[in-house]
Amino acid sequence: MEKPVFNRKLTPALKPYQRRLFEIVFEAETPAGRRFDEVLLLLIVTSLLVIMLETVQGFAALVYQIFYGIEIMMTLIFTAEYIVRILIVREKRKYIFSVLGIIDLISILPTYLELLFPGMHYLMVFRTLRMLRIFRVLKLTKFTSEAEVLLRGLKSSRYKITVFIASIFVYVVIFGTVLYVVEGPEHGFTSIPLSIYWAIVTMTTVGYGDIVPVTAAGKFISAIVMILGYSIIAVPTGIISVEIARAVREGASELNTRSCPSCTKEGHDPDASYCKFCGNQLTVSE
Amino acid sequence: MEKPVFNRKLTPALKPYQRRLFEIVFEAETPAGRRFDEVLLLLIVTSLLVIMLETVQGFAALVYQIFYGIEIMMTLIFTAEYIVRILIVREKRKYIFSVLGIIDLISILPTYLELLFPGMHYLMVFRTLRMLRIFRVLKLTKFTSEAEVLLRGLKSSRYKITVFIASIFVYVVIFGTVLYVVEGPEHGFTSIPLSIYWAIVTMTTVGYGDIVPVTAAGKFISAIVMILGYSIIAVPTGIISVEIARAVREGASELNTRSCPSCTKEGHDPDASYCKFCGNQLTVSE
Amino acid sequence: MEKPVFNRKLTPALKPYQRRLFEIVFEAETPAGRRFDEVLLLLIVTSLLVIMLETVQGFAALVYQIFYGIEIMMTLIFTAEYIVRILIVREKRKYIFSVLGIIDLISILPTYLELLFPGMHYLMVFRTLRMLRIFRVLKLTKFTSEAEVLLRGLKSSRYKITVFIASIFVYVVIFGTVLYVVEGPEHGFTSIPLSIYWAIVTMTTVGYGDIVPVTAAGKFISAIVMILGYSIIAVPTGIISVEIARAVREGASELNTRSCPSCTKEGHDPDASYCKFCGNQLTVSE
Amino acid sequence: MEKPVFNRKLTPALKPYQRRLFEIVFEAETPAGRRFDEVLLLLIVTSLLVIMLETVQGFAALVYQIFYGIEIMMTLIFTAEYIVRILIVREKRKYIFSVLGIIDLISILPTYLELLFPGMHYLMVFRTLRMLRIFRVLKLTKFTSEAEVLLRGLKSSRYKITVFIASIFVYVVIFGTVLYVVEGPEHGFTSIPLSIYWAIVTMTTVGYGDIVPVTAAGKFISAIVMILGYSIIAVPTGIISVEIARAVREGASELNTRSCPSCTKEGHDPDASYCKFCGNQLTVSE
Repeated sequence: MEKPVFNRKLTPALKPYQRRLFEIVFEAETPAGRRFDEVLLLLIVTSLLVIMLETVQGFAALVYQIFYGIEIMMTLIFTAEYIVRILIVREKRKYIFSVLGIIDLISILPTYLELLFPGMHYLMVFRTLRMLRIFRVLKLTKFTSEAEVLLRGLKSSRYKITVFIASIFVYVVIFGTVLYVVEGPEHGFTSIPLSIYWAIVTMTTVGYGDIVPVTAAGKFISAIVMILGYSIIAVPTGIISVEIARAVREGASELNTRSCPSCTKEGHDPDASYCKFCGNQLTVSE
Repeated sequence: MEKPVFNRKLTPALKPYQRRLFEIVFEAETPAGRRFDEVLLLLIVTSLLVIMLETVQGFAALVYQIFYGIEIMMTLIFTAEYIVRILIVREKRKYIFSVLGIIDLISILPTYLELLFPGMHYLMVFRTLRMLRIFRVLKLTKFTSEAEVLLRGLKSSRYKITVFIASIFVYVVIFGTVLYVVEGPEHGFTSIPLSIYWAIVTMTTVGYGDIVPVTAAGKFISAIVMILGYSIIAVPTGIISVEIARAVREGASELNTRSCPSCTKEGHDPDASYCKFCGNQLTVSE
Repeated sequence: MEKPVFNRKLTPALKPYQRRLFEIVFEAETPAGRRFDEVLLLLIVTSLLVIMLETVQGFAALVYQIFYGIEIMMTLIFTAEYIVRILIVREKRKYIFSVLGIIDLISILPTYLELLFPGMHYLMVFRTLRMLRIFRVLKLTKFTSEAEVLLRGLKSSRYKITVFIASIFVYVVIFGTVLYVVEGPEHGFTSIPLSIYWAIVTMTTVGYGDIVPVTAAGKFISAIVMILGYSIIAVPTGIISVEIARAVREGASELNTRSCPSCTKEGHDPDASYCKFCGNQLTVSE
Repeated sequence: MEKPVFNRKLTPALKPYQRRLFEIVFEAETPAGRRFDEVLLLLIVTSLLVIMLETVQGFAALVYQIFYGIEIMMTLIFTAEYIVRILIVREKRKYIFSVLGIIDLISILPTYLELLFPGMHYLMVFRTLRMLRIFRVLKLTKFTSEAEVLLRGLKSSRYKITVFIASIFVYVVIFGTVLYVVEGPEHGFTSIPLSIYWAIVTMTTVGYGDIVPVTAAGKFISAIVMILGYSIIAVPTGIISVEIARAVREGASELNTRSCPSCTKEGHDPDASYCKFCGNQLTVSE
């Protein structure tokens, strides 16, 4: 099992109350740590709901003041948490510039910026990034190893996925251009970029229907785009199935803890009788 | 093979007619039991058709009285069946609070409630839950073991699926918010929850076309949402393929624990008579 | 390799010209047989094109007479072919009632019926069934074994697929009814059957956009339907992947023609040293 | 590892500056060759952007002259590159008629043709084919082997895919015709080819919504088309998963033909030093 990236060690010189705080804020195994994570999850979800409902017309008018209050309170809580984390962590610089550290900062900064510069409503997007903190909470549970298998599957198929996306790109540019030429601006295909957008909408089988081919030739070519797009999805699925199967198998063989009695190395196949590293006989597994 | 969950044993003290009734109502292997299940399936489907057609304008006006009569009759039959089941089952409390027991109750209760409180047309939803009784009938056939393989596949991949759904959730909230900011209420993206709805419609490739991006930036970001959504489907497919493959394999190996009496090796095909490793005769399986 | 189903044997008493005809019409391996199949494929495609283009407004007006002539000619050719097949085949009854025999009849009958009873334009559907004859031609090539692998994969997963379709059915009925209650006739959900149609359109990610949820609650429930539908597709894909993998593996082991020198049985695993049927030593493969 | 197709050998008689040019233009492993490829990639992308933006209304008016200049310049650069490639390659004829050679020609020819015959705006499509040169650049990196695995997977499943596409074809023609008969021209299904287009739009789950069934019967049949289409996608996915799995496995085993010098058994892991079957030392691989 790989070590979690953010499992920072404490210096032995930490005072007891600091050690206690660390346990609560960073650990998930202790009861206090688990409770802290649960409260955090609740706060994040509440905060998200507030951000979302602020934009709903009816709601905003009614309870704007309440939402505003909750938002400020949330931000203060998250700020306090951020400061505590910085104070008690040993490698402060490492935490601040870590992915989780940046997410922690991003989840408080936009609210302050909006207070300073009102009207920058696009900061709202950054406020929703607060949601990424959900992964901080999930990270500390048994979900990590599952996520790791998924990520390992995606990672080991990254070259295949790049080739796939490059092909998709070439594919939509060519068919987008063809439809632009065939249908033309008078049927809604007003430019090549828009036609490429249409090709993506079609190939991914989203099919909004805001731009559709009108001529017989355009419909014929569209049909080809659709069938190809419909078939192409099989390719990444196949890739990822195979990679996940491999990741799962490798994950399993990690758990196959049969180790050589001579050299103590692990990773032997289930049917192996001799250590593949030192050649000595293996004990019978199970 | 696991024992079916609801295969309740009879007390030896049951009278012959009770034993007979039990056979008919709960068993599926006996001819009488199978016929009872077939009649039940027919009744369920008829009942469902009636509920559906009641809502069709033309139909309702014409044959409302007939439908009403059938509905009442069905409910009476199902009520009788429910009472019989309670009477003859030994662990009454266990049956009543079992999943199937609750479904049996739900399939009769709404009709009575509608008789008592006319106008509560949303009870109709509960009436369609009657359909879940189809699984009671299916349960007793060879479909169970197949459904079990499916469920085992889904169950053993539940953490991976949770991670996947959490990612999807984060994904649609972020992209929904981005589109809300980019397109804004003037292009139909009137609030963040609605924009998240749009993101879900797009990412799942449903693409109704009721809300579509209008600006170039919105279209560009949508294209990314589509391609990601189109690729992401590969992940659960891969997960479930692998899990089903494992469930099938394990299901097969459960049926195949034959080992060679001479060399004790396993992994023999079901049709093998001799050990493929040492050539000695295998014992007859089962 | 299994024997093709329709490879009927000739009686030894056939006259030479009959044997020659049989070779041309039923065999695909001989040059004459292959040429006959190619001509047949061309005729089928031409015939299909004529049927299709007949319905296109502009075309029909222009060249109706020509199309009519081609159609009659095609039907005569196919009729002649049908009669020849009946004449030269030994088990006439078996051919006439075989799947291919019925397709051969269906591909000529509708045209005659339309001549007798003009105006029955729905016979057109049956005329397109002529297209199924494409499979007669494909059947005789190396595609058969591939199609067999596909069919075997589908067949061996038929219980899983039934469970899956039953679940889909329950799923769309429940969600269709829920949306009918939530949205109601005023938002286009005019009856439960129509709402079920909407649920199918949504769950399969087709998403026409002719019926869409309008209320917030409806949109929220729709989002759930979409995400479930989007995830559910992973289940049949997983099932079929696994079954095809099994069919391919089994297909491969059929081609693994290693046979026991003692009992001549085949189907040994690549790593087997002894015959699993009679226990005698196998020769080393390859 | 197979040899890349276009890795042409130089004659020993090449002059040093020619050898140098060859290294830059055809090789990707040397620093100069890699830099050349990067510049080429940049030029291709710029050129594509120019072609696309030319068709955008606002842009074109503003900066048409600049775009025109860039386009001409690009074409001159690509022409120079094409000539250099012809000059330094030994088997000139082979290069000119190779796939990459033709792509190189196609990426320059349309611009010249447009200069000669202004107004042939459909040549634009051929200009976008310039984009295929991206694969020339990708080809020279580690992506090749991944693309090869994908292509091998697709290639070895070509018969299965042909059967699949033939089935899809039969499927959409039959259901298209059925819907034409059921819905008829008054509901937008004006001809069989258009109805087949509808069937493709529906089956691939694109679902534009430009043509939708209106009658109850049409909607019922559409629902079947959708569910079938939704399930059918599982078939190519399954096929390709299996084939990619095989291609990956074979790719791995190609790299791993190490056999034990003592017992000659194969199947050793890449990291094995001793035979897992008999315990003797393995020779060092490669």
